[in-house]
Amino acid sequence: MVKKQRLVVIGGVAAGASAAAKAKRTNPESEVILLERGPFISYGSCGMPALVAGMIPSADELIARDPQEFARRGVEVRTQHQVMEVDAENKRVLVAELTAGREYSLAYDDLVIAMGADAIRPKLPGLDLDGVFVLRTLADGLAISEALKTHRPRSVAVIGAGYVGLLMAAAFRAHDLPVTVVEMAPQVMVNLDEDMSMLVLDEVRSHGVRVLLNDKLVRCEGRNRVEKVVTESEEIPADLVLLAIGVRPNTRLAQEAGVQLGAGGAIAVDKHMRTNVAGIYAAGDCAEAVLQVTGDKVYIPLGTTANKQGRVAGANVAGMDCTFEGIAGTAATKVFGLEVARTGLTEREAVTKGFSVHTSRITAKDRSGYYPGASRLDVKLVIDAGGRRLLGGQLIGASGAVKRVDVLAAAIYAQMTVDDLTHFDYSYTPSAASVWDATLIAANVTSRCK
Amino acid sequence: MVKKQRLVVIGGVAAGASAAAKAKRTNPESEVILLERGPFISYGSCGMPALVAGMIPSADELIARDPQEFARRGVEVRTQHQVMEVDAENKRVLVAELTAGREYSLAYDDLVIAMGADAIRPKLPGLDLDGVFVLRTLADGLAISEALKTHRPRSVAVIGAGYVGLLMAAAFRAHDLPVTVVEMAPQVMVNLDEDMSMLVLDEVRSHGVRVLLNDKLVRCEGRNRVEKVVTESEEIPADLVLLAIGVRPNTRLAQEAGVQLGAGGAIAVDKHMRTNVAGIYAAGDCAEAVLQVTGDKVYIPLGTTANKQGRVAGANVAGMDCTFEGIAGTAATKVFGLEVARTGLTEREAVTKGFSVHTSRITAKDRSGYYPGASRLDVKLVIDAGGRRLLGGQLIGASGAVKRVDVLAAAIYAQMTVDDLTHFDYSYTPSAASVWDATLIAANVTSRCK
Repeated sequence: MVKKQRLVVIGGVAAGASAAAKAKRTNPESEVILLERGPFISYGSCGMPALVAGMIPSADELIARDPQEFARRGVEVRTQHQVMEVDAENKRVLVAELTAGREYSLAYDDLVIAMGADAIRPKLPGLDLDGVFVLRTLADGLAISEALKTHRPRSVAVIGAGYVGLLMAAAFRAHDLPVTVVEMAPQVMVNLDEDMSMLVLDEVRSHGVRVLLNDKLVRCEGRNRVEKVVTESEEIPADLVLLAIGVRPNTRLAQEAGVQLGAGGAIAVDKHMRTNVAGIYAAGDCAEAVLQVTGDKVYIPLGTTANKQGRVAGANVAGMDCTFEGIAGTAATKVFGLEVARTGLTEREAVTKGFSVHTSRITAKDRSGYYPGASRLDVKLVIDAGGRRLLGGQLIGASGAVKRVDVLAAAIYAQMTVDDLTHFDYSYTPSAASVWDATLIAANVTSRCK
Repeated sequence: MVKKQRLVVIGGVAAGASAAAKAKRTNPESEVILLERGPFISYGSCGMPALVAGMIPSADELIARDPQEFARRGVEVRTQHQVMEVDAENKRVLVAELTAGREYSLAYDDLVIAMGADAIRPKLPGLDLDGVFVLRTLADGLAISEALKTHRPRSVAVIGAGYVGLLMAAAFRAHDLPVTVVEMAPQVMVNLDEDMSMLVLDEVRSHGVRVLLNDKLVRCEGRNRVEKVVTESEEIPADLVLLAIGVRPNTRLAQEAGVQLGAGGAIAVDKHMRTNVAGIYAAGDCAEAVLQVTGDKVYIPLGTTANKQGRVAGANVAGMDCTFEGIAGTAATKVFGLEVARTGLTEREAVTKGFSVHTSRITAKDRSGYYPGASRLDVKLVIDAGGRRLLGGQLIGASGAVKRVDVLAAAIYAQMTVDDLTHFDYSYTPSAASVWDATLIAANVTSRCK
C-alpha cells in the first residue's frame, strides 16, 4: 500500500489557506492538515478597517472559507492549535492545543510555514495599558470594534501614517472621533514619493485628522486604561491608541529548525517557495520575495503576494512545477475618498539604488472631463534615464487610480520602456477614461519618439 | 530667407486636431492651417450619446479646444471650408468656402488627410424621410437632440446593435421613449463573442429595450416624416429612426490624388503615417492600422487610434521620427449599467484566423465580495493553444471592466503568454479589486505551471 503523503501547513490566514486548498485540489489523495494558532482562518485582513468603520455588517463577511468548508474539500483545519517546535530532522511538529492545554506531536512529509508577521510593539512605557491596540489579526479588529462600543473613547491617537494607520484613522473618523496621527517620517505613506504623498496628506487633513509629521512616540500614560500619548513634541489626550508602525516576520520557529532567513529577516525562499531545509516550504508574510524591477530579494508583506506564494507552495507540494516570479512592488489603498496605488520603485528608492532617474508627473482626469463625476488623477512615472526602462509608477485620484497601476506592473514584469507604454492600446469610454488615458499622457510627455 | 514650411490638415475632429497641434508645438516656425468642412472642430464624438441622454448640459462641453484656442497656439483653423480636390503633383488643395460660396487654391508643403469616416446609409427606400438620422458628427448629435425637443417622438427604432446603436438606445430610454433595436447579426456587439454578448443583451433588455436579432431593415415609411420601420419580420412604428450600422472611410479625394487604399478601403499608411504619395500623410478614421496580435492591416476606426495617429503624423511632419505601432484591438463602452471592454481577437476571430484556440471564462467580482458595491465581473481570455500566447480578452461588469482591459492590451503588445499574466503584480485594495484580481483568476485557471 502506498503511504499517504501528509502536508502540514502552519498558519491559515492567506498563504496557509491558499497552500492547503491548492495542494488538496491538486492531489486529492494527499492528507492536508492546517494548523492555526488563532480562532479564525482564511479571512481578508485588509477589510478590517472597513469593518471597524462600520461599512461591513459583520466579521463573518471577511471570512472567505470557514473550517467546515475546508473540511468538505478534504482539508482538516485545527484552529487554536499553535505549533511550538519544528523538528526538521524527524519531520515532526510539536503542537499545543490551546483550548485543551495539552500538546501533541504530528508527523509531516511536507511542511508549509505560513506563520505571517506580527505587529511591531516598540519597547516604550505604557504600551501595555488597556486601550492600546495593534491591528493584525481578525481578533485584533474585533477587539477594537468592541472597545469602540463598550468604552466609547473620546479621542484616538494612531501611531504610524502608513496604509494601516491612515485607513484606521478614516475608520475612527467614521465614528466621529477626533483623531491624531503621529508619524516619525517627514511624510505620510513612505512608500510614495514625498510630492505624491502630499496629496494623501491633504486628503487626510481635509477629513479632520490631525497629522503630526517628524514626531515620535515616547510613551503612553494612564491609570489602567491609556489616557494620553506623549510624543517628542507634545502630549495628546487619547483613550484609544493604535500602534501601526509595521510588522516583523514570524520566523522564530523556522529559525530554530535550521531554516535560513533572508531579506528583512524573513524566511529565505527560492522561486518554488522552498526553504533551505528539505520538505519545508515558506510563503506569505513570513517569507521574502524577489522585486522584479531590480532582482533584489525584499520583504514586502502583502495579502496578494501571500496568496500567490501559498498557491505556488501548495501546487509544488502536490507535485506540480510552479514558480513565483516575484513582485513588482504593487500596493494600493483607498484613504477617505482617494485611491492610492504604486508599483516598482519610487524616485527616492530608484536614486538610492543608484539609477540615474528621470520622472514624468502629470495631472489629468480619470474619465472624459465632460462626463459626470470626472475627477483629478495624478500620475508619476519613474524612469531609468539611461535605458528608458520603467522603474515605477504612482497614481492618486478619487477613482481609477488602483486598477491603472496594473498596466505599469505588467510593463515592469516584462522590463518595458516608457516608450513601450506609449504604444499600448489603452481602453477608452467617456465614463471610465479620457481619450488620452492619464497613464498614456504621462508616458507621452516624456517620450522622445527617437 | 528660409521658406516657412506650410502644413495643411484636412479634417479637424480627432486625428486632424491632434496632428495640427502636435506639428505646431514641435516646430513653432511652421505654418499650420486646419481645414474642416463642418462647423465644429476638436470634439469628443464618443460623448454624443451622453449629450443626447441629457447627462451633459451642453455640446460646448464636448469641445476640447475651439478655433480661438488653436489660434492662440498658432494654428489657423478654417471651419466650413471643404477641400474639393487634392493636386498632389503641384502640392495644392482646392478649397470651397461653404458659407461664402467661393473656392480658392491653397499650397502646402505637407498634407495630413484626416477626413474621417461617414456613416453608412444603405440604399433602401424611405431613408431620406425626416426623422431618419445617423450619428457621426457633432452636428448629427445636435440634430437628434433638437428633434427630441421639437418633434417629441413617441417611439424610436435603432438600426444596428453595435456600440453606437446600444449607447443611443440607452440615450433614448433616458427620455423614457420606447426603443426597438434591429440587428442583422444573431447577437448584439459583433466584436464580442456571442457568450459574452449575451450579458449585454440581457442588460439592454432589462432596461426596456426591445431587441430584434437576425432581422434586417427593408425600408422606412411615412409621409414627409418617418412613421414606421419595415424589417424582414415586422413593421415597427417609429417616428425617430437612427441608422447605426457602421462607417465607411472618407477616401474619395485621397484616391483621386493617387493615394493608395488598404485594409477595409481605408488609406494605406506606414508606421510613420505616410501614404504612398510624397508629402501626404493620413491619420484617423480614414486610415488603416496594424493589428498587433496578428500583424494584419485592419480598419477599426476609433477615437483613441485617431488621436494617436494624428499626433504621430504631426510629429513627423515637424521633423521628429515617431511611429504608430498599431492597435491591440481595444474597444470599450458603457451600456446602461454595464461596462464592456475587449481587446485583441475574440474566440471567433481567432478561429477564423486559423489559431488553435483555448479559452478561459470566469465570473468573479470587481472588488472584495464583502465591500459595499461589489458587483459581478465576467472575464474571457482567448489563448493560442500552441504557444500559449494571449490573443485577446473580453471583460463585462457593472464596474472595473474598462480599465482592466489595459493590462491585456499591454500583454498583447509585448506578445506575452497567459502564463505571464499569472505573474503580474496586480493591485489590490478591497474597494477596487479582490485579493485575486478577476483577470488573475482567469489566467490562473488556465495556467499549467509547466
